[in-house]
Amino acid sequence: MDRERIQKQLQFLIEADKMKTILRQTMLTDKSRRENDAEHSWHFALTAMVLFEYAHSPEVDQLRVLRMALVHDLVEIYAGDTFLYDDKANEDKEERERAAADRLFGMLPQDQGAEYRALWEEFDAAQTADAVYAGAIDRIQPLLNNYMVQGYTWKKGNVHSGQVLERMQPIKKGIPEVWPVIEFIIEDSVKKGYLQK
Amino acid sequence: MDRERIQKQLQFLIEADKMKTILRQTMLTDKSRRENDAEHSWHFALTAMVLFEYAHSPEVDQLRVLRMALVHDLVEIYAGDTFLYDDKANEDKEERERAAADRLFGMLPQDQGAEYRALWEEFDAAQTADAVYAGAIDRIQPLLNNYMVQGYTWKKGNVHSGQVLERMQPIKKGIPEVWPVIEFIIEDSVKKGYLQK
Repeated sequence: MDRERIQKQLQFLIEADKMKTILRQTMLTDKSRRENDAEHSWHFALTAMVLFEYAHSPEVDQLRVLRMALVHDLVEIYAGDTFLYDDKANEDKEERERAAADRLFGMLPQDQGAEYRALWEEFDAAQTADAVYAGAIDRIQPLLNNYMVQGYTWKKGNVHSGQVLERMQPIKKGIPEVWPVIEFIIEDSVKKGYLQK
Repeated sequence: MDRERIQKQLQFLIEADKMKTILRQTMLTDKSRRENDAEHSWHFALTAMVLFEYAHSPEVDQLRVLRMALVHDLVEIYAGDTFLYDDKANEDKEERERAAADRLFGMLPQDQGAEYRALWEEFDAAQTADAVYAGAIDRIQPLLNNYMVQGYTWKKGNVHSGQVLERMQPIKKGIPEVWPVIEFIIEDSVKKGYLQK
């Protein structure tokens, strides 16, 4: 047994607990409070599992996608959550997240830290088959929640349907069969006043 | 596109949001509040991924374990969380959870609902190689958190070290190489007064 290795891994898992305190813009469907990163990561992974049959390519590897889902937001422990529609905050997002990744993945044994960092970078670059599927799932989870709370986050950010359609394009690419339902949700949101035209 | 199928799946995913409101006994490491089932499920899955190299058998399938982790507590949306050391509440746990499983997994398309229910039952029965590994991981996550908050939950429940050692046996079985570290944590908790001897 390599005790030092196990201790590093347990320390990392303890540090990861902080994901439960990083708040996102998304509200819970009961509107009681904002969602946190740990909850989102679980819901993301569950969604990736449930909708897997619609993946855009037979090359998508479910195990790699679930591993990606579980680590994709960990850097936010130090870098914070950046709202999708906040253009200013998105400017230095990359730099903040890179520094956070050094710090966080550096807690793990070197081989494992490098592997997790590569998974996160792959997700972020959104180029591989797995990352394209994961990117679609990452968008659909908050969209559903926002629809269920009558567009709370959209209203707060003065978001209009053109912006949502644009930001939801990864869904069209990653799970094309589901796209018509997403279009319906966006149109219905406009019709019901959840979202500006 | 089978629109009815997709709608059932999205409804299920929306219902799953309720996991974020089911509280467990475990405290967050910053002691700000109790952990919920969505957070635990994510932390469980991340732990299963990080400690996978210590799985008790080469037969353990990481994808199946992650899928199990993501759905293992879903029935608590209707059945509630049952505290590990509450013997009375554990008496009718099985019946409550079975009824909840009928209701929840029944929301999904039939083939998928049956598959998820089987995964949950397999986890619960703790017999297969995958379920034995998953069972170990399910125990280690709250143990680590409880150690980080000076035994908050143990003190509250008047738990003593013999009970913890007994309830943590699945760790010995599922990730035997990690067991010495767990024994150290339990001994150290007694030494520091987090846990009664």
